[in-house]
Amino acid sequence: MTEPWTLHPDRALPADPGVRSIARQVYAQTADLPIVSMHGHVDARVLDEDQPFGDPAELFVIPDHYLVRMLVSQGAGNHELGVPARAGSGVEVEQDHREIWRRFASNWRLFRGTPTRYWLEHELVEVFGVDTRPSAKSADAIYDHLLDALARPEFRPRALFERFRIETLATTDAATDDLAHHTSLARQGWGEKVVPTFRPDALVHIDRPGWPAGVAELSRVSGVDVDGYDAFIVALEQRRAVFRAAGARATDHGHVSAEATPLADEDARRIFAAALRGEATAAQAQAFSGHMLVEMARMSSEDGLVMQLHPGVLRDHDPHIAGVFGPDTGFDIPVQVEYTRALRPLLERFGRHPGLRLVLFTIDETVYSRELAPLAGVYPAVRLGAPWWFLDSPDGMRRFRDAATETAGFYNTTGFVDDTRAFASIPARHDLARRIDAGYLARLVAEHRLDLDEALETAVDLAYELPRESYAPPV
Amino acid sequence: MTEPWTLHPDRALPADPGVRSIARQVYAQTADLPIVSMHGHVDARVLDEDQPFGDPAELFVIPDHYLVRMLVSQGAGNHELGVPARAGSGVEVEQDHREIWRRFASNWRLFRGTPTRYWLEHELVEVFGVDTRPSAKSADAIYDHLLDALARPEFRPRALFERFRIETLATTDAATDDLAHHTSLARQGWGEKVVPTFRPDALVHIDRPGWPAGVAELSRVSGVDVDGYDAFIVALEQRRAVFRAAGARATDHGHVSAEATPLADEDARRIFAAALRGEATAAQAQAFSGHMLVEMARMSSEDGLVMQLHPGVLRDHDPHIAGVFGPDTGFDIPVQVEYTRALRPLLERFGRHPGLRLVLFTIDETVYSRELAPLAGVYPAVRLGAPWWFLDSPDGMRRFRDAATETAGFYNTTGFVDDTRAFASIPARHDLARRIDAGYLARLVAEHRLDLDEALETAVDLAYELPRESYAPPV
Amino acid sequence: MTEPWTLHPDRALPADPGVRSIARQVYAQTADLPIVSMHGHVDARVLDEDQPFGDPAELFVIPDHYLVRMLVSQGAGNHELGVPARAGSGVEVEQDHREIWRRFASNWRLFRGTPTRYWLEHELVEVFGVDTRPSAKSADAIYDHLLDALARPEFRPRALFERFRIETLATTDAATDDLAHHTSLARQGWGEKVVPTFRPDALVHIDRPGWPAGVAELSRVSGVDVDGYDAFIVALEQRRAVFRAAGARATDHGHVSAEATPLADEDARRIFAAALRGEATAAQAQAFSGHMLVEMARMSSEDGLVMQLHPGVLRDHDPHIAGVFGPDTGFDIPVQVEYTRALRPLLERFGRHPGLRLVLFTIDETVYSRELAPLAGVYPAVRLGAPWWFLDSPDGMRRFRDAATETAGFYNTTGFVDDTRAFASIPARHDLARRIDAGYLARLVAEHRLDLDEALETAVDLAYELPRESYAPPV
Repeated sequence: MTEPWTLHPDRALPADPGVRSIARQVYAQTADLPIVSMHGHVDARVLDEDQPFGDPAELFVIPDHYLVRMLVSQGAGNHELGVPARAGSGVEVEQDHREIWRRFASNWRLFRGTPTRYWLEHELVEVFGVDTRPSAKSADAIYDHLLDALARPEFRPRALFERFRIETLATTDAATDDLAHHTSLARQGWGEKVVPTFRPDALVHIDRPGWPAGVAELSRVSGVDVDGYDAFIVALEQRRAVFRAAGARATDHGHVSAEATPLADEDARRIFAAALRGEATAAQAQAFSGHMLVEMARMSSEDGLVMQLHPGVLRDHDPHIAGVFGPDTGFDIPVQVEYTRALRPLLERFGRHPGLRLVLFTIDETVYSRELAPLAGVYPAVRLGAPWWFLDSPDGMRRFRDAATETAGFYNTTGFVDDTRAFASIPARHDLARRIDAGYLARLVAEHRLDLDEALETAVDLAYELPRESYAPPV
Repeated sequence: MTEPWTLHPDRALPADPGVRSIARQVYAQTADLPIVSMHGHVDARVLDEDQPFGDPAELFVIPDHYLVRMLVSQGAGNHELGVPARAGSGVEVEQDHREIWRRFASNWRLFRGTPTRYWLEHELVEVFGVDTRPSAKSADAIYDHLLDALARPEFRPRALFERFRIETLATTDAATDDLAHHTSLARQGWGEKVVPTFRPDALVHIDRPGWPAGVAELSRVSGVDVDGYDAFIVALEQRRAVFRAAGARATDHGHVSAEATPLADEDARRIFAAALRGEATAAQAQAFSGHMLVEMARMSSEDGLVMQLHPGVLRDHDPHIAGVFGPDTGFDIPVQVEYTRALRPLLERFGRHPGLRLVLFTIDETVYSRELAPLAGVYPAVRLGAPWWFLDSPDGMRRFRDAATETAGFYNTTGFVDDTRAFASIPARHDLARRIDAGYLARLVAEHRLDLDEALETAVDLAYELPRESYAPPV
Repeated sequence: MTEPWTLHPDRALPADPGVRSIARQVYAQTADLPIVSMHGHVDARVLDEDQPFGDPAELFVIPDHYLVRMLVSQGAGNHELGVPARAGSGVEVEQDHREIWRRFASNWRLFRGTPTRYWLEHELVEVFGVDTRPSAKSADAIYDHLLDALARPEFRPRALFERFRIETLATTDAATDDLAHHTSLARQGWGEKVVPTFRPDALVHIDRPGWPAGVAELSRVSGVDVDGYDAFIVALEQRRAVFRAAGARATDHGHVSAEATPLADEDARRIFAAALRGEATAAQAQAFSGHMLVEMARMSSEDGLVMQLHPGVLRDHDPHIAGVFGPDTGFDIPVQVEYTRALRPLLERFGRHPGLRLVLFTIDETVYSRELAPLAGVYPAVRLGAPWWFLDSPDGMRRFRDAATETAGFYNTTGFVDDTRAFASIPARHDLARRIDAGYLARLVAEHRLDLDEALETAVDLAYELPRESYAPPV
């Protein structure tokens, strides 16, 4: 390895010297631009309270499902990595965080070739000034170095937020969230910087165990007595208005399929009533969630919130893990997903509506050139989000540009959108995306398929202008 | 941008200097070869009448669904782009063609990274001598320049045909077409140059609204009273004979799926009779169209017309647009398609028949390595067509060679086949394909996987010999 | 072509000079490592008897389905290539092997760009010292050269085995095989070198014509009277123990789908009884084979044999060819395959079991990033095998690393596993994989995504350590 451990200025740029030289020019346009982070999973509380982050295991290992899953794949138990187990599960969770960190550091080789490795290298070196590669040998020294840094004021959340040059950070919030932290942030002048996102998944999937509680909570927080479908719609519209008033720019929808077929009102009422009685069938639940996507598009066309759709993940593939450790611990596995037929009823109604913006994400690459780029390349409402989840990676992003651009162009995409739980990784992810886009644009220039001035402008659009414009506040 | 606007001699060749240098040698073998264009959508009338093309909007914008869909995706209405609306639709279509051109030119950036941009650059610079990049500012000057050129004799269709070095141009014609323009062209000595293609889609899809009128027309033009399935088959065979006599080399079939399962004769008769009574079900219609693919393979095995299959497109995704503007206005979206199981009944019967050549196209890239290359790599009847529609693009063609060659080789492909409506784009498309193939072959040479003499020969085969041989006239 | 015909030392390394220079360093680490070949189809008899290979047609053409299928695709009949026809088929098989060789040599161009070409070039030049490219003209001279070589002792199977530096070679054997050749090899001190693999496909697919005979054979060889499901399980466990005692490391399972859902014992008993009576339905047969995958995982978790799964091939696509020439003659065509949902019931039970190692192969590239890498990246039992069959090719292997590594890393793969019937191609295949992996790792280094020391270590792991460790003998 290179000693000391440093970040190479040309990292993630193309290897060919001629293309790299162009890519450097392109990247130079975007390297210092502010970050517009419109789809994240950082908790607003973190910024509202602005308390120091915990120890290195708490910041880097335990909450990062990318990292946990890789260690699990080579034999570590989730509990050995400090992942909290449900009360009463009888599982003893490792409490020695230094031990957890050692386990991670001594398995550094597992991450070779992965974006986790790339992001962590950026975070450790650039953000925290670590100058030794993680290993069994270096684990303790790095732990101590990080522990020391995390105690300092310049590593508190808001200080990092400013240092990262974040212009806007969107959080993801349950539709029933009271947005107390956002309200508090607004009072402190951070209302423009940290905005909520309306996520109603728990309310539109009527077969999930938590649904009745969710509906009760919706009644409480909205003040609308949700005793039937019509009240449900009114309550959702009320919540959207509250989110919008709190600065929300978008809604977010995670469904297994992209199915979006409207039901007749009487059918929606009947199914909702059955669900309230606990009698809805699986088929009814699926039909209802597909219907609600159309309803959400209708509401977006009226209130201007951008609608984001992320289908195609089978959550909690291992039910035992889900039972003990809960969701988001690395056992979510993608499945094939179809958009052309599934979205047709929605697009027939709202695909050319001037009030709707529908951002489509995928974790199934086969649809880039076959379905998503053709849809985004003709429907004015549709934009393609950035490569999502496992695909938010150097080669994953390259394949996306390669497969989508020739049909959708650049301007039917949203530019870069991260999907980060790990606050400290935000600049690493945006920087990586800017490098990959610079490399892609440089290749087009080197192949004389684009002029240099066009590449320079497009790079700024992808890094900054398109995310801003795609998620512009509702008028 | 480079001033003045020019085409770089190395455009679309690989960026790596060593590979590019080999690619230049390979491309030099094919750059000046004649064009064999065996699957186009140019109207024979254009060449028969040889009238000047209209204005720039009429030539470049209004009829080009690639171009129209991109402008629509960013908010233009089809009517604002001059796309003719159906009588009685009440839609007012923009009549000011200069205004349409301005709208296009000022949105030039939307096309960055797309093949439309690449083709148009070639056409404007190389064919029409434009030396300024389109923009809001340059729109009028370019419009005037083009208007002037189009009025000159050297820009009439036949003059361009000769200048483009087109050896053979196949048109696509309804099975009921009287081929009057082809007959007229033949009388003028252009019969070898412009040949028809037999497309019976309208007759084999018994659930389409126009089907009864199509069958009536078939009766009229064939002289066979199509009162049942047997007469239908006789009439189709009669029409194929007429097409063959007029120089046709091939048939063309656009189906949603590749399903090709024969029906028993009595079932085919029963379904056809139901269709004549307007009583065929959707399931019957699907079964009948799949049956007719097998029948078409049978006829091809007898009369030697090459059979081309293009499945996997859901036409008219937005029914409102289809209702007002008709088909082919940019709202056709691909769907997943399966070939291995779907074509098995057809290939079982005719896959090793010396009389059949079946050319398979796809717009779903996932089947290149999984299904198409393995099928073409063993069935003597099967050849792979060139990347189709949205995939007829620099990176799309690269991915095709990359995914298909290792299993199918080069000689189970047809070489380059364009699918062009836009006459002036024919040389741009063929030139681009030759460049991409040169780059692919050069990479194999640079990686010492192919000798240079083999690459030089293969390039000529892909550009010229294979299209000629794949679509050779029936013996 | 280059004269004389030679292998370039940089073949299959990346073309870019900077990346190639790193790739050379990486490849140098692995070029001379022993070969660990854990999934082959060489017959143990060949090594046990150690007789000279036959003539060039017998060694290179007739038994190689890659080669046969390509010649068939361009019009040769299987019989014209010497492929033996079933007795009574009435097909006359070409007996003149020199004529068969001429046919192959004169069609050398068909193989351009294919791995067959790459492997054969390696075999002819490196193993057999041929110095002229095959062609109609050179055919006879090469034939004579090879005939002469094959008669010499240094080209006998065991001499080549040593020359190829094979450390371990796994064969594939029916579950009912008596392993006589393995026993004989062991007596001669070759028991560690040539190990059997347990393949029970013929016994778990109860709807195949040969199933009753297979069950009878199982009774005979195991000494267990297989009169019902429970005895069937006992007999299979007995056979696994015999294989394990003979040095087997793994089992191998070829199913059309990856479906692995357990049946209740009483259902398994009922279906097995129906199968014994010849009354099992197709649906029952499918359910039973899916159940048996779970049973095999259960047995592997107990006896430590590595479980290999190869789904997604429709065998004998052309039934006429299968009828005359039998299986494995080039007419097997891949179909789409799903793993996420299909394997869930198996992984729920055994995915975190410390005794199970499940190696997944695919011939459908769409699942690399969508399903396989996410599964292998979290379940400790799962490893990804190398690109299989048509995908065991230079660009196929590159796409695999590109698509799988970012989610699964390197250490959730098995490293290189060949799948060879052609003994003489084993070193060509391993050498090619080492070159491709060197190129991939070199690119990561050139893009500053990996340090050089890490690349050097990873290369050795992929070429040697991971195959050894992935298929380590059961403890």
